[in-house]
Amino acid sequence: MFMHNKRLQYTVRVSQPNPALASLLLEQFGGPDGELAAAMRYFTQGLSEDDPGRKDMLLDIATEELSHLEVIGSIVAMLNKGVKAQLSEAAMEEAELYLAINAGGDSHTQSLLYGGGPALTNSSGVPWTAAYVDSRGDPSCDLRSNIAAESRAKIIYERLINITDDPGIKDALGFLMTREVAHQKSFEKALYSIQDNFPSGKLPGLTQYANMYVNASQGEGDALGPWNEGEQWERVDNIEEYLPVDGGDGLATVKLSKAETKTMEAMATRLQSDPASNPATGADMGAGPGAGKLTDEDMGGAADMGEAKAMAKKLN
Amino acid sequence: MFMHNKRLQYTVRVSQPNPALASLLLEQFGGPDGELAAAMRYFTQGLSEDDPGRKDMLLDIATEELSHLEVIGSIVAMLNKGVKAQLSEAAMEEAELYLAINAGGDSHTQSLLYGGGPALTNSSGVPWTAAYVDSRGDPSCDLRSNIAAESRAKIIYERLINITDDPGIKDALGFLMTREVAHQKSFEKALYSIQDNFPSGKLPGLTQYANMYVNASQGEGDALGPWNEGEQWERVDNIEEYLPVDGGDGLATVKLSKAETKTMEAMATRLQSDPASNPATGADMGAGPGAGKLTDEDMGGAADMGEAKAMAKKLN
Amino acid sequence: MFMHNKRLQYTVRVSQPNPALASLLLEQFGGPDGELAAAMRYFTQGLSEDDPGRKDMLLDIATEELSHLEVIGSIVAMLNKGVKAQLSEAAMEEAELYLAINAGGDSHTQSLLYGGGPALTNSSGVPWTAAYVDSRGDPSCDLRSNIAAESRAKIIYERLINITDDPGIKDALGFLMTREVAHQKSFEKALYSIQDNFPSGKLPGLTQYANMYVNASQGEGDALGPWNEGEQWERVDNIEEYLPVDGGDGLATVKLSKAETKTMEAMATRLQSDPASNPATGADMGAGPGAGKLTDEDMGGAADMGEAKAMAKKLN
Amino acid sequence: MFMHNKRLQYTVRVSQPNPALASLLLEQFGGPDGELAAAMRYFTQGLSEDDPGRKDMLLDIATEELSHLEVIGSIVAMLNKGVKAQLSEAAMEEAELYLAINAGGDSHTQSLLYGGGPALTNSSGVPWTAAYVDSRGDPSCDLRSNIAAESRAKIIYERLINITDDPGIKDALGFLMTREVAHQKSFEKALYSIQDNFPSGKLPGLTQYANMYVNASQGEGDALGPWNEGEQWERVDNIEEYLPVDGGDGLATVKLSKAETKTMEAMATRLQSDPASNPATGADMGAGPGAGKLTDEDMGGAADMGEAKAMAKKLN
Amino acid sequence: MFMHNKRLQYTVRVSQPNPALASLLLEQFGGPDGELAAAMRYFTQGLSEDDPGRKDMLLDIATEELSHLEVIGSIVAMLNKGVKAQLSEAAMEEAELYLAINAGGDSHTQSLLYGGGPALTNSSGVPWTAAYVDSRGDPSCDLRSNIAAESRAKIIYERLINITDDPGIKDALGFLMTREVAHQKSFEKALYSIQDNFPSGKLPGLTQYANMYVNASQGEGDALGPWNEGEQWERVDNIEEYLPVDGGDGLATVKLSKAETKTMEAMATRLQSDPASNPATGADMGAGPGAGKLTDEDMGGAADMGEAKAMAKKLN
Amino acid sequence: MFMHNKRLQYTVRVSQPNPALASLLLEQFGGPDGELAAAMRYFTQGLSEDDPGRKDMLLDIATEELSHLEVIGSIVAMLNKGVKAQLSEAAMEEAELYLAINAGGDSHTQSLLYGGGPALTNSSGVPWTAAYVDSRGDPSCDLRSNIAAESRAKIIYERLINITDDPGIKDALGFLMTREVAHQKSFEKALYSIQDNFPSGKLPGLTQYANMYVNASQGEGDALGPWNEGEQWERVDNIEEYLPVDGGDGLATVKLSKAETKTMEAMATRLQSDPASNPATGADMGAGPGAGKLTDEDMGGAADMGEAKAMAKKLN
Repeated sequence: MFMHNKRLQYTVRVSQPNPALASLLLEQFGGPDGELAAAMRYFTQGLSEDDPGRKDMLLDIATEELSHLEVIGSIVAMLNKGVKAQLSEAAMEEAELYLAINAGGDSHTQSLLYGGGPALTNSSGVPWTAAYVDSRGDPSCDLRSNIAAESRAKIIYERLINITDDPGIKDALGFLMTREVAHQKSFEKALYSIQDNFPSGKLPGLTQYANMYVNASQGEGDALGPWNEGEQWERVDNIEEYLPVDGGDGLATVKLSKAETKTMEAMATRLQSDPASNPATGADMGAGPGAGKLTDEDMGGAADMGEAKAMAKKLN
Repeated sequence: MFMHNKRLQYTVRVSQPNPALASLLLEQFGGPDGELAAAMRYFTQGLSEDDPGRKDMLLDIATEELSHLEVIGSIVAMLNKGVKAQLSEAAMEEAELYLAINAGGDSHTQSLLYGGGPALTNSSGVPWTAAYVDSRGDPSCDLRSNIAAESRAKIIYERLINITDDPGIKDALGFLMTREVAHQKSFEKALYSIQDNFPSGKLPGLTQYANMYVNASQGEGDALGPWNEGEQWERVDNIEEYLPVDGGDGLATVKLSKAETKTMEAMATRLQSDPASNPATGADMGAGPGAGKLTDEDMGGAADMGEAKAMAKKLN
Repeated sequence: MFMHNKRLQYTVRVSQPNPALASLLLEQFGGPDGELAAAMRYFTQGLSEDDPGRKDMLLDIATEELSHLEVIGSIVAMLNKGVKAQLSEAAMEEAELYLAINAGGDSHTQSLLYGGGPALTNSSGVPWTAAYVDSRGDPSCDLRSNIAAESRAKIIYERLINITDDPGIKDALGFLMTREVAHQKSFEKALYSIQDNFPSGKLPGLTQYANMYVNASQGEGDALGPWNEGEQWERVDNIEEYLPVDGGDGLATVKLSKAETKTMEAMATRLQSDPASNPATGADMGAGPGAGKLTDEDMGGAADMGEAKAMAKKLN
Repeated sequence: MFMHNKRLQYTVRVSQPNPALASLLLEQFGGPDGELAAAMRYFTQGLSEDDPGRKDMLLDIATEELSHLEVIGSIVAMLNKGVKAQLSEAAMEEAELYLAINAGGDSHTQSLLYGGGPALTNSSGVPWTAAYVDSRGDPSCDLRSNIAAESRAKIIYERLINITDDPGIKDALGFLMTREVAHQKSFEKALYSIQDNFPSGKLPGLTQYANMYVNASQGEGDALGPWNEGEQWERVDNIEEYLPVDGGDGLATVKLSKAETKTMEAMATRLQSDPASNPATGADMGAGPGAGKLTDEDMGGAADMGEAKAMAKKLN
Repeated sequence: MFMHNKRLQYTVRVSQPNPALASLLLEQFGGPDGELAAAMRYFTQGLSEDDPGRKDMLLDIATEELSHLEVIGSIVAMLNKGVKAQLSEAAMEEAELYLAINAGGDSHTQSLLYGGGPALTNSSGVPWTAAYVDSRGDPSCDLRSNIAAESRAKIIYERLINITDDPGIKDALGFLMTREVAHQKSFEKALYSIQDNFPSGKLPGLTQYANMYVNASQGEGDALGPWNEGEQWERVDNIEEYLPVDGGDGLATVKLSKAETKTMEAMATRLQSDPASNPATGADMGAGPGAGKLTDEDMGGAADMGEAKAMAKKLN
Repeated sequence: MFMHNKRLQYTVRVSQPNPALASLLLEQFGGPDGELAAAMRYFTQGLSEDDPGRKDMLLDIATEELSHLEVIGSIVAMLNKGVKAQLSEAAMEEAELYLAINAGGDSHTQSLLYGGGPALTNSSGVPWTAAYVDSRGDPSCDLRSNIAAESRAKIIYERLINITDDPGIKDALGFLMTREVAHQKSFEKALYSIQDNFPSGKLPGLTQYANMYVNASQGEGDALGPWNEGEQWERVDNIEEYLPVDGGDGLATVKLSKAETKTMEAMATRLQSDPASNPATGADMGAGPGAGKLTDEDMGGAADMGEAKAMAKKLN
């Protein structure tokens, strides 16, 4: 069960209201790498985890992330406190209020729709979605996902620190950023204390495809590195020779019943695009006066009209 | 620029149509760990990557993932080939067709809406969203995200292999699963060949908070492990003593201008919920005959009516 | 700050695994009226609330809802425990596992994608979205929204109780359902202890439109009730006479500058659909052999072909 | 069946084009409390309502809300009329047009993507979603939801009025705002004319939990009010003593079959994180030159490099 | 299988960084008519297409659209190149960086969250969703959808060209725009070479309803054109006379079993809103001091208070 | 303004309740080609249309589509009428109700969450989104989009007719399907009565790229048809020779300022992945006992353990 103490984990001291900055900080409230995403990621994993150590760790960190959600949300609330009251009480002339809520970011929506409260959106106003939570119920995946998520959350905090000069906000963001570093370390320890954690799952993979590197993008810029050369890699450069890699015909086939085959043929006949036809089309009809079949000239034909000609010049 | 050869990277041989299985396989076509997510993850990273080696690798793997999207999509198309034609041609009685499209999973939607074509949804019919793509433009984050994503994709393929007994599909899924293992290895190499990759970004973190472990979930089940004990960790068990960790007052404050403060007070006065009142409420009015203020008895009062009483028994 | 005790607020005793039932219960985990929605609704309101009593109440209830999220999630985890291990260890033949994960609801996705962990989706697999949270930063709105949300959550629990015969689950659902009743009562008290809570906000509304009832849906079934008749209502039955209600011309107009007007006219001229033309169209061309302009006969013309005729009969 | 008269319910007179204001007004066109949400809320309820009086009322109000959607959409269309034509006809230099479409809010998207037409998005460009519609098919819930929705719509109109100084727009918004007040009154009447409307549904709730108030958030700021004290409330302050409230063990358990238990154990063994290990981790390897296990010094170790040191100072 | 050459299909030369313009161009990267939508539309159709000619064409064009995704994404990456490095390296004072990332559009999110990489969002930051892809598995629908999509993509490019004065970007956009024209022509040819392509599908439609034009919107502004008059149309002006068009009772009915009927009646009785009552409501209670039942005066009653009176004046 | 008559445009006679069929029919209520999508498409276009004829037509058809939304919603309500009452009144044993709400499709969610009312979701329970509406404010695009949308809606109705044997439902669906045919015809007339409707917009396109067909997908299956051969097409088969088509270097470049260049270089140096390193990685560490660097044998190494070996066999 959760309990709450009204004191924040970290004191929030904001120098002055600034709804535009508030809207940027929402990235860590309701954004994809924000604190709700973090808390829900670990909480959902913790609920179904059977390993006692990991379960404890996941619930510890989930609970702390909820407390961070509270810290970042409190900063946002403070930054919006002025505009919230002004809009609510109609304390200024319309034109002034219009400017106050339009100061940057998506602060206009934060004021008009959310009344200055911290909304579970990112900095563009996109509502938080559980599609951000990638818990899969396997610890060797989930811990890797958590490690990655912490590293992402760290960098977003760093970017926010880089654009903020309010010292109290900077302090709190520095704390929050550092906690992501600590959490990443915990998840790393938990991952590497699983003896066989690579590859994830139980099936080992097929030997012949596990060390193949497919050089699918070629041309100037082709490069070598430990990710595609060395004793553990077989690099495939001549892709079309290995097409398909299994030596089959490279086609997709399915065995249909007789009835299915017959129905399929009926459908194919009914719906065929006759390659030998050269039909007039809707585009032909719509291509302007004098156009029958579109030709190279027709495309430029519109350019005979003065204004469009100028347009065309702009392009060429 | 992309080019395409109509041969698949891996030959697809499906034993017989099965739209319900098709709808499960969509998890790797349009699901969060599916091949489109993989391709777009690496492609968007590759476009803005400045390191020539990583750029090449990202485009290589993005291109291969598009080819995997083609393989899994081709399996889905084959599994749906029967029902697609039958529905299109109305080749069976209505009741038969109704059963054919309702065989399990979300195959009903795949047939009715998508006409049996592979749709960019997951196995519940949820449309693919770029919210699945967590590219952040920093390689020490993005490579960790890619590592995690590959481990997740691997486990989803393993689960699909575990539930499929069509040998041709099993073969192709085994190939696709193994390629995720190989890709994870490449991304690991690329990550660890960045000299300082932890923590991500440039700011080092605040020393005093980087090694703190907050034991926020307590009680029976509290556990120790390398993630929270050992020389590198300071574990905080008595949380309320460290509340807030910065030694401040743990409150959220903002400095308002005089005008803002006055407006805020006006708002607070207008909107206060008077703690000394005990108002009758809408719930009081709606709580049934004889109810004024709701009391313990009132809640049970509804139970005087015969049927509701039986209901209440079911619960108690 | 949040803290957590590993004991649940209510003991969860599940008789046996049942992933299909689990997927239905997700409605209250990650559905629109589920516990995450409730917790986030009150938490976001609490963070920006300035009234001390309401702030305390909102944080109390938000915290309890998180604890309910834990209870319902734990039930889901228990119900999925069997299939999670079986799929992870490939403990059964493929065909058996296929059936096990396809038992009903959207349990297939819960098993394949989420590995049996409680996922933040509703019972159709739709990921939770903050679009469910309707906090607006005004207490007379927010408390009404909370009252409504609690009444909705109550009814969903009631429906789940009605379809569940596992006594341990029924018990826990009964507890959770009742707590929604208690929360609704608290929110009602808080609303009605605001002296002037109707209408919400500060602007009183325009007298002449506040008591008008527009009988916009007419014909058989037109009915009277306290919502549209009585001394406080002026019912408008003859709508077109009052069109527009302000006595103006009922048009939408804007004053454009000269330059804008000229540009607008140029656009209108370029893009007009000539009402005096009767052009041949793409549909005309595609309507089959012999069709020029489509006429009543043309539509039926397809019916000359044997099979389509039968089709048409099915319809007529 | 619906019919339409081209006259608006309220005349729209816009002083001059202003695409930025248009984008703010979209909140009531395609936002969560906008007119489409209102219309669809009542329309979906009306379709399945069996009570003749409520059905009539729901269809009356749904129809009027569609007419309001038309009014607000017409204002938006007028405000965008200039930029629509200018962009369509390329009537200005590129740099001028760039500024014209970038005047504030999300007007850039409204111009580029929607061509100046009213789009079903909110003021941040988020597309309308039926997730906003909370019809549940029970009148004691749905009417409460409608009451809350009307109060929210009212406040959004009030906020828009507060930031607009175009008198014609202000007039129309005042009309629309007032109609929400009238609709709320109708829904209140309909709710309270259901004799037993609290709690919603048929099950009465469990007496012992219906009057309990869980003081889950404690510390400075704890407050009393009619929502948690008085004869009808039992307040639980010492939460851990009541954990769990049912007097059980507070654990989540499920009875597994023998086979399931064995599989579960196999999985647990395979996937355990060994608490007695202290593995080197990926983070250890990535923590820069000289780092083995991360210690307190290591975190600061990066600070030896000049620039990062300055960074760290910024934070401390 | 896909292959990739690192050379772009069209050379990208950007004059200088401009993150605000970058965020506008995202409309064609991750917007609804952007290149990913185009590529996925044709790719999903191609995978399940059985007609060899169309399959080839769909894969040709899908592959080219992926190459266009690369071109537009590369422009975005170039435009963001400055801000990406500056934010990553904290190369400027906080206040300068704040301005740099807030230059317009939704560039703030592109910088903070996506690190300057091209993100799969539209110009308002809305993540790409497969809901944009309307492949239905029937060529006479899908080709029409493709034709429409190409015409939309063309116009968005035209609008972007109209607001851009960077000649290198203008060039590339001109190329991309023109390719949409070419693709539309291909799809038109493919559609019209299906002999019977209208109406889509196999069922011919019911003769009596296929030529009926329902004049559902009446009043000033009613107009005639080839879409509603001429020999092929029967226009229905007097709608209520034809209500319902089938000559039935215009009601919705279902045959219920006896048990269902009885249950339905029980529900109706329990939940009826008594039309003969005139209950006091929550709104009545909240309407301020002195209010009992709301009357016309009560609404204005609030106006007795000085400030609200002024408010009301603003409205009237 | 809209008005409503309670009679439906087409009489709905349902033989018996069937919630599973109801959930399939939702495709045309809240699905992407459903009636809400149609109504909103035309309504949003109509509001900003300046051509009087088209405006009238768009409002006529939008209004009729709302009436169709009512018809299809009424069918759904009838099909759900039994289960709605049974669940509401708990009229059956739990196990029976469980089966009743689990009869197929996504009827479980329709019953539990939406209470049997018609919900604005598709047949998989995905909430309707305005992302389905592709109005762009240019008639030559919008009319093409409308034509395509009508053809899609027609085919979905045809598929539903093909799986339904309730004669009353079949009748109503036949009517609705036919109206889509009629609407398509109107939109075709309106499109082709715009004199120059191809290409959409004002810019004519660049002559040299308008007739080029890029044969981007090659290999067995390459085909010819009117869409890529004939006098109006220049087909590019040797793609790499034309790479890039503009004869440039095919690179993406941007001119950075000196300061930007310097910052970019600092970032590149800090973040480079050293191609000459061959670092041990997290995967190496996690690959099980004895593994150092992963080699071909390591991948198979796991196969030494009995069970995994058997697994591997399953795959090979």
